[in-house]
Amino acid sequence: MATRKKSADTGAGNGTRNDAESTNRSWGGRFQEATASDALGFTASIGFDIRLYPYDIRTSIAHARMLASTGIISAKDRDQIVRGLRDVEKELDEGAFVPTISDEDIHMAIERRLTEKIGAVGARLHAARSRNDQVVTDVRLFLKDAIAATLSAIDDLQSALVSQAQAYVGAIMPGYTHLQRAQPILLGHHLLAYHDMLERDRGRFEDCLDRADVLPLGSGALAGTTLEIDRAIVAEELGFARVAQNSMDAISDRDFVAEYLSAAAILMAHGSRLAGDITLWATSEFGFVRLHDAYSTGSSMMPQKKNPDIAELARGKTGRAFGNLMGVLTVMKGLPLAYNSDLQEDKEALFDGVDTAVRTTTTLAALLRSLTFDEKAMRAAADDGFLLATDLAEYLVARGVPFREAHEITGGIVLHCTEHGITPADLSATDLARFCDRFEEDVAEILTPEAAVDRRTSPGGTSGRNLKARLKQLSTSPGPRPSGGAKRRKR
Amino acid sequence: MATRKKSADTGAGNGTRNDAESTNRSWGGRFQEATASDALGFTASIGFDIRLYPYDIRTSIAHARMLASTGIISAKDRDQIVRGLRDVEKELDEGAFVPTISDEDIHMAIERRLTEKIGAVGARLHAARSRNDQVVTDVRLFLKDAIAATLSAIDDLQSALVSQAQAYVGAIMPGYTHLQRAQPILLGHHLLAYHDMLERDRGRFEDCLDRADVLPLGSGALAGTTLEIDRAIVAEELGFARVAQNSMDAISDRDFVAEYLSAAAILMAHGSRLAGDITLWATSEFGFVRLHDAYSTGSSMMPQKKNPDIAELARGKTGRAFGNLMGVLTVMKGLPLAYNSDLQEDKEALFDGVDTAVRTTTTLAALLRSLTFDEKAMRAAADDGFLLATDLAEYLVARGVPFREAHEITGGIVLHCTEHGITPADLSATDLARFCDRFEEDVAEILTPEAAVDRRTSPGGTSGRNLKARLKQLSTSPGPRPSGGAKRRKR
Amino acid sequence: MATRKKSADTGAGNGTRNDAESTNRSWGGRFQEATASDALGFTASIGFDIRLYPYDIRTSIAHARMLASTGIISAKDRDQIVRGLRDVEKELDEGAFVPTISDEDIHMAIERRLTEKIGAVGARLHAARSRNDQVVTDVRLFLKDAIAATLSAIDDLQSALVSQAQAYVGAIMPGYTHLQRAQPILLGHHLLAYHDMLERDRGRFEDCLDRADVLPLGSGALAGTTLEIDRAIVAEELGFARVAQNSMDAISDRDFVAEYLSAAAILMAHGSRLAGDITLWATSEFGFVRLHDAYSTGSSMMPQKKNPDIAELARGKTGRAFGNLMGVLTVMKGLPLAYNSDLQEDKEALFDGVDTAVRTTTTLAALLRSLTFDEKAMRAAADDGFLLATDLAEYLVARGVPFREAHEITGGIVLHCTEHGITPADLSATDLARFCDRFEEDVAEILTPEAAVDRRTSPGGTSGRNLKARLKQLSTSPGPRPSGGAKRRKR
Amino acid sequence: MATRKKSADTGAGNGTRNDAESTNRSWGGRFQEATASDALGFTASIGFDIRLYPYDIRTSIAHARMLASTGIISAKDRDQIVRGLRDVEKELDEGAFVPTISDEDIHMAIERRLTEKIGAVGARLHAARSRNDQVVTDVRLFLKDAIAATLSAIDDLQSALVSQAQAYVGAIMPGYTHLQRAQPILLGHHLLAYHDMLERDRGRFEDCLDRADVLPLGSGALAGTTLEIDRAIVAEELGFARVAQNSMDAISDRDFVAEYLSAAAILMAHGSRLAGDITLWATSEFGFVRLHDAYSTGSSMMPQKKNPDIAELARGKTGRAFGNLMGVLTVMKGLPLAYNSDLQEDKEALFDGVDTAVRTTTTLAALLRSLTFDEKAMRAAADDGFLLATDLAEYLVARGVPFREAHEITGGIVLHCTEHGITPADLSATDLARFCDRFEEDVAEILTPEAAVDRRTSPGGTSGRNLKARLKQLSTSPGPRPSGGAKRRKR
Repeated sequence: MATRKKSADTGAGNGTRNDAESTNRSWGGRFQEATASDALGFTASIGFDIRLYPYDIRTSIAHARMLASTGIISAKDRDQIVRGLRDVEKELDEGAFVPTISDEDIHMAIERRLTEKIGAVGARLHAARSRNDQVVTDVRLFLKDAIAATLSAIDDLQSALVSQAQAYVGAIMPGYTHLQRAQPILLGHHLLAYHDMLERDRGRFEDCLDRADVLPLGSGALAGTTLEIDRAIVAEELGFARVAQNSMDAISDRDFVAEYLSAAAILMAHGSRLAGDITLWATSEFGFVRLHDAYSTGSSMMPQKKNPDIAELARGKTGRAFGNLMGVLTVMKGLPLAYNSDLQEDKEALFDGVDTAVRTTTTLAALLRSLTFDEKAMRAAADDGFLLATDLAEYLVARGVPFREAHEITGGIVLHCTEHGITPADLSATDLARFCDRFEEDVAEILTPEAAVDRRTSPGGTSGRNLKARLKQLSTSPGPRPSGGAKRRKR
Repeated sequence: MATRKKSADTGAGNGTRNDAESTNRSWGGRFQEATASDALGFTASIGFDIRLYPYDIRTSIAHARMLASTGIISAKDRDQIVRGLRDVEKELDEGAFVPTISDEDIHMAIERRLTEKIGAVGARLHAARSRNDQVVTDVRLFLKDAIAATLSAIDDLQSALVSQAQAYVGAIMPGYTHLQRAQPILLGHHLLAYHDMLERDRGRFEDCLDRADVLPLGSGALAGTTLEIDRAIVAEELGFARVAQNSMDAISDRDFVAEYLSAAAILMAHGSRLAGDITLWATSEFGFVRLHDAYSTGSSMMPQKKNPDIAELARGKTGRAFGNLMGVLTVMKGLPLAYNSDLQEDKEALFDGVDTAVRTTTTLAALLRSLTFDEKAMRAAADDGFLLATDLAEYLVARGVPFREAHEITGGIVLHCTEHGITPADLSATDLARFCDRFEEDVAEILTPEAAVDRRTSPGGTSGRNLKARLKQLSTSPGPRPSGGAKRRKR
Repeated sequence: MATRKKSADTGAGNGTRNDAESTNRSWGGRFQEATASDALGFTASIGFDIRLYPYDIRTSIAHARMLASTGIISAKDRDQIVRGLRDVEKELDEGAFVPTISDEDIHMAIERRLTEKIGAVGARLHAARSRNDQVVTDVRLFLKDAIAATLSAIDDLQSALVSQAQAYVGAIMPGYTHLQRAQPILLGHHLLAYHDMLERDRGRFEDCLDRADVLPLGSGALAGTTLEIDRAIVAEELGFARVAQNSMDAISDRDFVAEYLSAAAILMAHGSRLAGDITLWATSEFGFVRLHDAYSTGSSMMPQKKNPDIAELARGKTGRAFGNLMGVLTVMKGLPLAYNSDLQEDKEALFDGVDTAVRTTTTLAALLRSLTFDEKAMRAAADDGFLLATDLAEYLVARGVPFREAHEITGGIVLHCTEHGITPADLSATDLARFCDRFEEDVAEILTPEAAVDRRTSPGGTSGRNLKARLKQLSTSPGPRPSGGAKRRKR
Repeated sequence: MATRKKSADTGAGNGTRNDAESTNRSWGGRFQEATASDALGFTASIGFDIRLYPYDIRTSIAHARMLASTGIISAKDRDQIVRGLRDVEKELDEGAFVPTISDEDIHMAIERRLTEKIGAVGARLHAARSRNDQVVTDVRLFLKDAIAATLSAIDDLQSALVSQAQAYVGAIMPGYTHLQRAQPILLGHHLLAYHDMLERDRGRFEDCLDRADVLPLGSGALAGTTLEIDRAIVAEELGFARVAQNSMDAISDRDFVAEYLSAAAILMAHGSRLAGDITLWATSEFGFVRLHDAYSTGSSMMPQKKNPDIAELARGKTGRAFGNLMGVLTVMKGLPLAYNSDLQEDKEALFDGVDTAVRTTTTLAALLRSLTFDEKAMRAAADDGFLLATDLAEYLVARGVPFREAHEITGGIVLHCTEHGITPADLSATDLARFCDRFEEDVAEILTPEAAVDRRTSPGGTSGRNLKARLKQLSTSPGPRPSGGAKRRKR
C-alpha cells in the first residue's frame, strides 16, 4: 500500500545485516552478529518511547545520586553524570539530539549520548539496574503526571457543567427514559447527573494513582541486585510513596496501565453519553441547543449544514479508549513471569489512552460552554400534559388510593386523552373526577411542569430547591469534594 | 440449529398475540393490545434476574417500612406486606413459586405473587418507586455480596501462595525473563509476586465497593417522586453508606458493573499468568511440579496423559472475563440519559463475571495447594553457571569497574564458555583473571546459586532473608494488610 | 452472594474427594485418586455442551459405520451401536436420560449411557478417535445449522425492510448526516440501506460456512491414528465438503468460531444502527413512527409511557456480541499447539453468539413490520427549505458556476435566510438572482422536496425511479441475490 | 504530563479564535465566526489521513475525467485539473507541500493547493461529490493495496514454514496436548499446521477484498446528486468491480474496515501461537531451537541472555490487533444513518491494523527462517516411551480388544511403569503379555517414535509419507492454492 515516502516506519526491512549499528549495542558482548535491520525495525521502541525522556533523565539522576550515596560511584562521577544528563535533556528539548533507530529505546539513546559527552564515566551509570526496572519507573512517573492532567480535565468539564446549570438554573425540559418524554425536569438536574458520573471517574483515577505510586527501581532484571543500594532515597527523590516489595512483581506489573485505561474507558463512556445528548439536542427536531460557529463545522457539499462534529468525534473516540484497554488486557493474558517483551506494547496504548481522555474531556468542556440553550423550546417540549401522568397517580396515592390502582386509573385517563387528541392537563378536576372520585379541585395546582418539578423535593429529586442547594455546595467546596470523590489515603 | 427440545428459550417466537398473559401487566392501562409472544420472549428478563430475588425482597421490605414511617401506607398494611414478602421468599427458596415469562421480570413476579397472597394491599407497595430505581438497588446489593465473595476468594489464593512459599521456603529455581533462564531465585519469591498482584486486586475491589455503596432507591423513574419519602432510613436498613444525590444519574449509572468487571479482568489476567506458569512447570521439560490425581485429568485416547486442565481452563476463562467487560462498556457507549432498556444487558455479564472470578480464583487456590514441587529438579535447572553472569559483572562493579565495561567483559566470558561447552561456574579465579585482572580468589564464593540468591538482600530482592521476613509479616497480619491493600475510607 | 439455592452450579466446591463418581472415568487407568469435586465442578462442560447431543449422536453413528466398513468393528457391533445411539438420543429428547456432572461432558455421557444399554460392545466405539477431534466435529455441525438459521433470520429482516419500503414507496423524509437534516430522501431508500448492509452480512456468513465445511474427525488426539480409517465416507455421511489435511491444525482450530462471531458482531452493529433509528423516529420530537402495542412496553411508574424497548434491547445486545468475540479471540491468543483445555471456552460464547444474532435479527424484523410510519410528519420535516441548498448549488454548477463558488453563494443565501427567519424555498427567482445572476425562473421548479428526490437519478441516488427499480429487482430474485451476496464456491 | 515540546499535538488548545485560518474553509459560507483552535485541533484529521494522499489524487483525477466526459466541466478544465493534481502529488511526494492543521483533512489540503496552483478552475472539481463519498473511496483504495500487502506477507510466512518443514523433513519431536507430551510427530507436520491456518487467513482477506471492491463515489453527501454523472467509468478507471447501489449505505458503511480488522485479529492470533511455540522451543528446558544472533536480543544487565524478543513482540502485538477491532466495532454501534463524524475514527485503527498485520507476519517469517532446529534434542524428547501408550492401545484394538478396554489395560501399564521408573518401551512382549494376552512378539516393532510416526498414514496424520506428499503439492502449486484458499469469484 502507498505510504508517505519519508515515513520509513511502515516498510518492512529487507533483512540485510546492520553491522555499523551493532557496535553500539549495550548487550553485545556475547553476540557475534549484528541484529538484522528488519528485526531492529520491529523491536526498537525509540519511535514512541522518546516521549518518556524527561522521566528517564529524572530517574537516571536519582539513580546516580543513590549510587554515589552508597559508594558504588564517586561523588565526582555522580556530578559529571548528573551534569551530562542535564545536557542531554537540553539537547532533547531543543531537538539538537535526535535518537536513531539503532539506539533501540530511549534508555540506550540517553546512555549512548551521555557517554559520547562525558566519556567513560557514563558507563558507570547502569550499575544495579536493568532496563526492566528502569522503563517501568519511567512509565509510572509518566502516569502520575497523566493522572494529574486527567483530573484537571475532569475539573474542567465539571466546572463547565456547573456553570451551564447555574446559567440556566430555572430551565425546564422533558426528562427522558427510553428516549420517550417521561417527566418534566430541570436542565441543571440533567447536567449535574454528568457531574456525579465525573465525580466517580475522579475517584477511580485517584485510586489508580494511589496504587501506582510505588517505586520499582532497584528490582534489577527480576531478582534485585547484589550491590548495596538504597531504594528509599530514590523513592524520596522521585516522589514515590512506597517501594515495591517483590522484584519479580515490580518488573512484570502493568496493572496500573490497565487500571488507568479502565478508568479512562468509563470516563469516555460518560463523555459519549453527554456527546450523544448534545447531538440529539442540536437536531432540528429537538432544537434544545444552538451550536456556536466556533465549535461546529460545515459541509463541503451542503451549504446549509452546521454539524456538532466535536460531540460526534468525542463519542467516536470511545472506541479507541475501549480498544486500548482490550489491547493491554490481551497483552497481559497468560504471560509467564517475569519480564517478557510483550510488555513493550503497553506504552502506545497508554499514551494514546491518556491523550484521548484528556483532550476529549477538555474539548467537551469547551463545547459545552459554547452552547446556547433554547429555554423556550425546552419549556414547550415539557409542556406535554402526558408528562404529568405520574403526578396524577401520586396525587391519588397521597389520597389513599393504592399505587397500582392509581396507575391503572391514570393509564385510562391517558388512553382517553390519546383518543381525543388532548392531554391530561387539558382536563378539569370535574373531568378527572369521572375517572376517580378522589380527584378534587386542587388537582389543577399540580398540572403544570413547574409544579411537577418543584414538588420533587425528596433528596436527589429534580426540584429547584435541590438543584440550588447542590450548586451552592459545589461552588463553595473547591478542593476535595464533599461527596463521592476518593480522598487520598495515607498508608 | 438443533437445541434441546425442552429449552423453549432458544426458538424465536411466532408473533401470535398473547392475550391471556397481558391481563397481568402492571403497566397495561394505556395499552389496548397484549404484547406479542416473540416480543415478550425477547424482552423478559425473568430467566436470569430471578437470581436477584433475595435482594428484591429485602429492598421491598425496607421500602414498605419507609412508606409506613412516612404515612404513605398504614402500619397494618406494612405488616401484611412484609409478612407477604417473607412468604413469597420462602416459596422461591423452596421452588414452590416459579415465575413465568409473562411476569417479565423478578420485580413484577414478586409483586404479582404478593398480591395473589395478600390481596389489594399488595397494590400499595409500588408507590414512590419505579422498576428503574428498584432494579439498580437490587443489583447494588448483589454486588456488595459479590465483592465480599471475591475478596474471600482472593484471601484463599493468597493463603495458598503463602503456605506453599512457606512449605518450600529454601527451594531455589531459575528466575526467567523472556522465558530464558535469567538468575537464580527462590520459589517463594516467585509465588509471592502473585501475592502482591492479588493485593492490588483486593484494593480495586474494595474501592469498587466503596464507590458502589450508594442507595439509588427513591430516584423514581428518573426525577424523584412527589410523595414524602425518607431515603435515609432505607439506606440505613439496607446497609448503604450514602444516598444517591442525583436521581437521573442514579437510575442510569452502571459504572459499578463496569468497574467490578474491570477489576475482575485484571484479577483473571493475574490468574492466567499463574495458570500459565503451572502449565509450564508441569511439562516434562521443566518438571518443576507434579500434579495431584485429584486436580488433573486424563485423556480419552492417550492412556499416559495427566493434564493440568484446571490451569488451562483458568487461563481460558480470562477470555470470558474480558468479553464481559467489553460487553458492558459497549452497552454504555452513547446511551442517552436517563434509563434505556439497553441497561438490562448488565446483569448476565455481571453474574457470569462474578461466578467466573470467584470460582476460578478459588479453584486455582485448591490446585496450587495440591501441587508437589520437585525441589531437586528446580535446583538442577538453577545450577546453570550462566545464570551467575550478572553476579560476575556486579562483582567487578563492586571493585570499581564501570558497569558497562563489566557487562562487556562478562559477555566475553559467556561467549568463551559457550564455545567451549562450559559455564562461568566452571572457571577458576585464575581463568577469570585472564578476562579482567580485578577477579580475585574470592570470586569463587559468589559462583553458586545459593550465593546468588542470598546476596540479593536489597529491599524486594530474592534473598532468603527477605522472603522469611515477608512471610512472617504476612502470617502475623490477619485482617487489613500492612501494604498495598486499600483501607476502607470514611466519607 | 445469594443465588438460587437449587443452583448448585454457582458455589465453589469444598474439595472433598468424589470417590463414587470416579469409577466412570474413561481415562482412569493411570489415576489412583478420584477427581476432587471442586475440580470436577470447574472442568466439567456437561452443563452447556449438552446442547451438542444431536450432533454427537450423528457423529458417533457415522464413526461406527466407518469403523465397520474398514473392519475395525463387526457389522453386528455396528448395528448394535447405531441402535443404541438412537435410543440414547430418544432418551435425551424426552428428558428420560439426564447426564450428571460426573459425566464431565456430553461425549462421555453418551458413551456411558450407550454402554449401560448395550453392554461391552459400546466400549468399541471410541476406537480411532479422541474427544479432541470428536468435539470439534460436533461444533462444526452445530455451526452449519447455526449459519443456516442466521441466514434465514437475515432473510426475514431483509424481507421486512423490503415490504415496508414497498408499503411506503412514495414517502419523503429528511435524510440526515451528523443527525442534522441534510437532503430530502425517500423512506424506502433509507430502509434499503439496511438491506444492503444485510446482504454483506449474508456473504460473510456464507464464506464462514464455506471455510468451516471441513471434517476434523480422524485427526485423533493430535497426530491421526494407526488404525485403518476412511475419512472420506465419514465426511460424506456427515455432509462435509472437505477433510482436514493436518491433524494438529484440525483439533486446535477454532477460527470458525471467531469468524462466526466476527460476522455476528458486524450484523449486530447493523442491527444496533437500525434500532437506534427506530428509537429516534419513535420520539415525540421526530414522530416518524408509531409503535404497535404488541411490540412496545409500558412503565411501572409512569402511566403514559410506551417504550421502544425491543429496539433498545437489540442495541444493547450488541455489547454481548462484541464481548463474545473478544472472549474467543482472547482464548486463542498465545495458545501452544495442539489442543489445550482453554478451547473448551469456545462453546458458551458461540451458543450465546448464535442465539443473540438469530433472535435479535428476527425480533427486529417483527418490530419493523409492526411499525406504522407517519408519512405526514416525515413530509413536514422534509419541508424545510434549507434542505434544498445543495440543489441550489448544483443548479448553479449546471449553469457553469464552479462548484466551490456555487457553494459559497448558496451559503450566503442560507445565512441571509437564517437572519430573516425564512428558508431558501421562500425566495423567488428574483430574490435569488440578487445572490447570483445565473438564477432564472426555472429555479422554482427545483425548490420542493419532491423535485429534490426525483432529480437524484444517478445510480445509487434516492429517486423514486431508482427505488422502484431496486424493489422490483429484489422481489423478482428469490434465491441467490444478483449483487453483493457471495455466491457459494465450488472447490 | 511531559511530552516532547515540539509535539504540539498533545496539548489541548486554548480556545482562542483562529481568524486567519478560517478564510480557507470550504464550507464557510454560512458561518460568521472561525473555528476555535481547540476545536480545530480536535476535529482535524490531516495528521493521519495524509497517508491517503496518493489515493485522493487518483480519485480526484478519475472524478475530473468523468465530469468532463459528462459535460459538467470542459475538457480544457479537466486537463488543467489533472495536471495540477499531478503537480500537487509530486510536491507531496517530495515534501515540498506540507499541509497544515487548518486544512482540516487531506481532501481540503489537496483542493486548496490545487487552487493555489491552477486558480479558479480548481473550484470546479468538487462538483457532484462530497467529502463523505470521497473519503470512503480513498479508504477502499487503500484497503485494496493493504490486502495485497497482507496476502504477500502471508505468502512469505507460508513459504518460510514450508522451507523449514522441507529442511528438517525427517525430524521427529513430541507432539503436545495440554503442553504435555502426547505422541511423536514430525516437526514438519507441526509447522504445516500453521500453513493451513494461514491458508484460511488468506481466504478471509480475499473475501474481504471481494466485498470491499465497490465504488462509493457518486453517492454525494448521502442521497446522490442532481448532476448528470457516470459512475461506471469512474469505477472502471479506479479498478472497482462494482458500483454501490445505495448512496446512504455507501457513505456510512465501514464494514470493510471491521472485516479487515477481524481477519487481521485471527491472523495475529495464529501468529501469537507460532510465536508462543518458538518462545517455548527456545527455552533451555525444551532446547528445540537455537536463535540466530541477528534475530534475537540481549539484556542490558545480564550478559548471558539471548532473548526471543521478536516472537514475544509478535505475540504482544496481538493485543493491538484485538484492540483495533474492538475500537472500530464500538464506533459502529448505535450510529444513526447516514454519515456521522464518529466514522473519522476508522482510519488510525485501520492504518495501525494493516501495519501490524503486515510487519508482524513478515518479521515472523524472517525469524522462522533464521532458526536452527536441534534435531537431536527433539528426537531425545520424543524418545519417551510413554508417548507410545496410544499405539499400544490401538495395537490391541486391531487385535479385537474393545478400545475402552484397551485404554484401561494400557493405563495400567503406564501406572506400572511410573511406579517402577521405566516406560512402556522398556517392556518386552512377555512383560506386556502379563497385562493382556493379545500382546505378541510383533509389538516390539511399534515401540519406537519412528514407527509411531510412520504408522499414522491416514489422511491428515503425521506420517512422513503424508508430509512429503503435502510438501510436494505445496511446492508445485505456486499461484492459487489447491486447497482451502478462497478462489476469487466472478460476479
